[in-house]
Amino acid sequence: MTYFCMNPTLVVLIFSLVLATPSFSSGADPQMQKWQSGKGWGWVWGKDDEVGSLNEMTDASRLAALRLATQGRVYDLGVLYDRTSYKWPGHSPGEILSFRTPEGVKRQQDLPALINNNSSKTAWHSCALFINDNVATQIDGLGHATEGADDHWYNGFKEEDWGGNWGPRKCDASTIPPIVARGVMVDVASFKGVDALPSHSVIGVEDLEGALRKQNTELRLGDVVLIRTGTLRFWGESGNDTEGLIAKHDSAGINLETARWLVEQKGAMLIGSDTSGLEYGPRPEDTTAYRAKYKSFMPVHNYLLIQQGVHIGEFHNLEGLSKDKIYEFCYLCSANKIKGTAAGFALKPIAIK
Amino acid sequence: MTYFCMNPTLVVLIFSLVLATPSFSSGADPQMQKWQSGKGWGWVWGKDDEVGSLNEMTDASRLAALRLATQGRVYDLGVLYDRTSYKWPGHSPGEILSFRTPEGVKRQQDLPALINNNSSKTAWHSCALFINDNVATQIDGLGHATEGADDHWYNGFKEEDWGGNWGPRKCDASTIPPIVARGVMVDVASFKGVDALPSHSVIGVEDLEGALRKQNTELRLGDVVLIRTGTLRFWGESGNDTEGLIAKHDSAGINLETARWLVEQKGAMLIGSDTSGLEYGPRPEDTTAYRAKYKSFMPVHNYLLIQQGVHIGEFHNLEGLSKDKIYEFCYLCSANKIKGTAAGFALKPIAIK
Amino acid sequence: MTYFCMNPTLVVLIFSLVLATPSFSSGADPQMQKWQSGKGWGWVWGKDDEVGSLNEMTDASRLAALRLATQGRVYDLGVLYDRTSYKWPGHSPGEILSFRTPEGVKRQQDLPALINNNSSKTAWHSCALFINDNVATQIDGLGHATEGADDHWYNGFKEEDWGGNWGPRKCDASTIPPIVARGVMVDVASFKGVDALPSHSVIGVEDLEGALRKQNTELRLGDVVLIRTGTLRFWGESGNDTEGLIAKHDSAGINLETARWLVEQKGAMLIGSDTSGLEYGPRPEDTTAYRAKYKSFMPVHNYLLIQQGVHIGEFHNLEGLSKDKIYEFCYLCSANKIKGTAAGFALKPIAIK
Amino acid sequence: MTYFCMNPTLVVLIFSLVLATPSFSSGADPQMQKWQSGKGWGWVWGKDDEVGSLNEMTDASRLAALRLATQGRVYDLGVLYDRTSYKWPGHSPGEILSFRTPEGVKRQQDLPALINNNSSKTAWHSCALFINDNVATQIDGLGHATEGADDHWYNGFKEEDWGGNWGPRKCDASTIPPIVARGVMVDVASFKGVDALPSHSVIGVEDLEGALRKQNTELRLGDVVLIRTGTLRFWGESGNDTEGLIAKHDSAGINLETARWLVEQKGAMLIGSDTSGLEYGPRPEDTTAYRAKYKSFMPVHNYLLIQQGVHIGEFHNLEGLSKDKIYEFCYLCSANKIKGTAAGFALKPIAIK
Repeated sequence: MTYFCMNPTLVVLIFSLVLATPSFSSGADPQMQKWQSGKGWGWVWGKDDEVGSLNEMTDASRLAALRLATQGRVYDLGVLYDRTSYKWPGHSPGEILSFRTPEGVKRQQDLPALINNNSSKTAWHSCALFINDNVATQIDGLGHATEGADDHWYNGFKEEDWGGNWGPRKCDASTIPPIVARGVMVDVASFKGVDALPSHSVIGVEDLEGALRKQNTELRLGDVVLIRTGTLRFWGESGNDTEGLIAKHDSAGINLETARWLVEQKGAMLIGSDTSGLEYGPRPEDTTAYRAKYKSFMPVHNYLLIQQGVHIGEFHNLEGLSKDKIYEFCYLCSANKIKGTAAGFALKPIAIK
Repeated sequence: MTYFCMNPTLVVLIFSLVLATPSFSSGADPQMQKWQSGKGWGWVWGKDDEVGSLNEMTDASRLAALRLATQGRVYDLGVLYDRTSYKWPGHSPGEILSFRTPEGVKRQQDLPALINNNSSKTAWHSCALFINDNVATQIDGLGHATEGADDHWYNGFKEEDWGGNWGPRKCDASTIPPIVARGVMVDVASFKGVDALPSHSVIGVEDLEGALRKQNTELRLGDVVLIRTGTLRFWGESGNDTEGLIAKHDSAGINLETARWLVEQKGAMLIGSDTSGLEYGPRPEDTTAYRAKYKSFMPVHNYLLIQQGVHIGEFHNLEGLSKDKIYEFCYLCSANKIKGTAAGFALKPIAIK
Repeated sequence: MTYFCMNPTLVVLIFSLVLATPSFSSGADPQMQKWQSGKGWGWVWGKDDEVGSLNEMTDASRLAALRLATQGRVYDLGVLYDRTSYKWPGHSPGEILSFRTPEGVKRQQDLPALINNNSSKTAWHSCALFINDNVATQIDGLGHATEGADDHWYNGFKEEDWGGNWGPRKCDASTIPPIVARGVMVDVASFKGVDALPSHSVIGVEDLEGALRKQNTELRLGDVVLIRTGTLRFWGESGNDTEGLIAKHDSAGINLETARWLVEQKGAMLIGSDTSGLEYGPRPEDTTAYRAKYKSFMPVHNYLLIQQGVHIGEFHNLEGLSKDKIYEFCYLCSANKIKGTAAGFALKPIAIK
Repeated sequence: MTYFCMNPTLVVLIFSLVLATPSFSSGADPQMQKWQSGKGWGWVWGKDDEVGSLNEMTDASRLAALRLATQGRVYDLGVLYDRTSYKWPGHSPGEILSFRTPEGVKRQQDLPALINNNSSKTAWHSCALFINDNVATQIDGLGHATEGADDHWYNGFKEEDWGGNWGPRKCDASTIPPIVARGVMVDVASFKGVDALPSHSVIGVEDLEGALRKQNTELRLGDVVLIRTGTLRFWGESGNDTEGLIAKHDSAGINLETARWLVEQKGAMLIGSDTSGLEYGPRPEDTTAYRAKYKSFMPVHNYLLIQQGVHIGEFHNLEGLSKDKIYEFCYLCSANKIKGTAAGFALKPIAIK
């Protein structure tokens, strides 16, 4: 047996190199810039800010998040959209229409210069879409929700100043930065022992705490928190909800108290779920009392988007993560870059483990 | 001075832990599954395959790519799209239209149940878009280009079998997997010492080799290769090309020979640039000869998309990378998930360093 | 008292002038150009024809029709379309979207040259529509229906020759000439003594004969025949069929035998009704036998549009005519002039009495 | 030879019967209900009125107009619209997209119940349109133009009360009644001896008077007055203005003084022309002075639509009437019936002689 000897300084150096990055992924929270315990954020990023809590991301926080990926396994959190996909009925319908097709290009004869002198008979497919910006997997921009007689949104931008004909001119979805952050999936459906939470289920703080305890995960400041109701197990290929199961379970969600806890106590930087709107929807018979109490038909949206500057993730498909019991990962999402849109839509965020 | 001695097995163990991942990022090429030198790929992934060369991605290759990010700095490679954005004139125009606005929701009075009993006067913005699937920053799906009397695309899918009314039913953009790979930016404009390559510039193999040599970067199998012409320095806020500068420089690009070298010699898994179509466009007076030689008005598309199954990246904004002289990075792109679309559009791919 | 005497020749002359036109409206059928009893029309107008039976209109026939208007009273036969209007579910949905609004024009600040130097604060409304060409009150163009392995329509135009990307390139709705003809409303619902014909009612020849007899109207060659089922009494403001009454009654209509009688025996130049498709729709349990017998899911469309070249009128509102017992009138319709559309849509045909 | 004698009362009676209708077409003006010489109309029809001067139409006036048709000859005043048609650049672009095609219906396999059991292989064409409501041949609704800090339109309807998300909720184009009226074409281009009036030509009162004198036509109260500049001789098949000729001549039109003369002195019920906007557009160098004088970039629109309640006809094709020297006719137009649209668009009005 031979021994191998090295200078201890070298050993330290090697270990430093090795551990420099994992140090972020093993517990230490990155320093928050503006978040305050018991308060969260709010309009704290300057009067021109359109980004909100996502301003907390730094190179260091992103690097730490990337280091959570230890296997390179990717989970696609997006759901497939087509003309039949379930959506909240207040949004416009959509069609993906063939604009050019190989046969059509040749028959239409509107581009003779392309079609002639083309011995390979080359042509192409392209589509023209009519589509709403609140469909399939989304991240709501901070200009999505408004409140008050002055119809203001996050950071006090008002309709009379920043409205227009082509979507809000402040805090549209194109201002959402690429999101690279620690993601945590809180599997409430599994915690409750159900395939999917029943209609009109309120997800309370105790449900999140219980689920986190069960799955042995802790929330950290700056997390992307994704809450699983199980609703998307009914999405099928493209969300054609012929049996009404998506609509049925879609009303399960967090209430305002839970949202406040996540932001003010836990510093969640983005909160999402596998439903169309994240938040609890009351039964018809409970609606009047609910509105009287919360003053809004979507108080969690008012709180997160307008008051706190916290983006909302919707219709994130958490089924794969649940099946594999993956609760902590690197969350990556990069919304499409279309000026005026109120939300990033038909997205394909990913979780990397 | 004291020495520190350890069992060599332990040392090997430590080094194995340390180097397990970095081994990919420090030189060793991941094993390719199907690529062959001098041949590239082709229809080698089975008769049902819709993914092409992106099948080469593995957990290991993704993890290696992620490890290229050593600082957590993000470069947004997407360009902002709006109604005025430059696009190839053969594509349909677009509008982002306010569907609901705070004032409109209240005035229209079509949703009394929402608007009444709403003391916070909550409302919302949402948009309906009419948009082409070949705008702004794109990744062309393998169903985009077709050739032959049978109008087939990648893997032999034919229009008469897999066409339809709502885009191609095979190899639409929703089949593009999330892309996590080593990205290399080849700064041809800087190599040539110009702000942007002149109109109708052919980028040859020697240009790529020269630029790579100058910037001290090597290509590896499975790379996402992004070639900079400088065209997007003229994008401005949203590509409203009032002075024609985008259109002018947009005709610079690679030719078929360069594409073949990248795929067959270098194993490029995805090839992109900062123009609308990646490939060289001839001058009007050269067009007839060009078509006679290459048999197509877009031979690089035919070769990459149809024959090789290699996706194309378009209008990737490489200005930030060029400015910071970043040539190697982790490339991340996750195309929107809309059935039938021929390309991922208005994307926001990112490079992480 | 004085008498006034005139030459009888002069009197005859005066009466001739007076009566010259009414002669058309009082019984004499205009000479048909191509119609044959027992056969109707067919592809008899030359190989390039896109107009079909409407070729029968002449200056004389139009003048005769105009002379049926003896009071100047106008009946609007169109129904109001909006985003909620009932339509056959196989058609695309629609939205009428504000493109420019007074506030939006001013806030968007994209047209400073217009908005500045504008002391009256002038602005405007305009809309962008996403709309199907088979909605509300329609006239089906002869390119709407196709049959055969070669997908041909009226006059043998085939998809491989005359298809394209933007609607049929032959017999689109823009080829429908302005229609000025004698209109006859056959009030089958009144004849049957019902508000509206029950679901899946077949309107047979005997029903038309009975109704015509009851209302003391005769059909003449070249008529526009409009058949009332009563379905549009459920249209309400804009056809938002929340109770399903339109859908329910919409399946009442003529069968192939009735269509043949109208064309081959009576020379009807255009046939319409107050339903979405004119023709009888069988009950689910009768569908298989129906299809086996007629070889098509819409045999009246095949017969009229493809084989006879007779246009079809749909969702013509006949409630006002029925209420006032107006059975003969001047029918006027001038379809919108949009290249490629398969039907004139959201029309406002009128009956003048 | 015998004489025929009759009681003069009887003669009068006969003549009355004979002439009852022609009396309108031979000189006697129908009684106007609200028009006042020197004042025109204005907001005189009651606070809920959305119809304006078209309220003047009566059964008698329509019957008189119909009697102007003495031959049954029809002139199609509409121009064909497609994706390439010239329009004012401030309007949204358009596409007519194949929604269903025979091949697509069969390949898409989304409607198996229709396609199976269909031995005739029946299918269909339908289109989905994205289209602006201010294209091709139009009649501007009274809600199109707005003015004032309160953004009001005709009859004082204000945006804050009657705006919404889907077009104006008062005076949209669906409120335009079917128009049946005496039409007069004033051929200013012929009067001036030119093919088409030069760019930026002002059509003054003296031009109309001169043209009317030359063509021996008189204006009467309640007329539809159509003014020919000759611009539409450049429309070609579908207005693809590749040489800029439509744009060039489109700036010829009437000024405010001419509009006032037509309404206040002549009682014109609707005023139209063969340009996109009826009114004179100044040269760039004259624009500032023009705006300072008239306080609006479209003073004729302000005056006619907002202040007088007189609809405007645009892009009416008068070439056929000019060629045949037809100056007086029955004008018929029935705008599409789409709630919220600001104008009737892509219309096919007709002149019957």
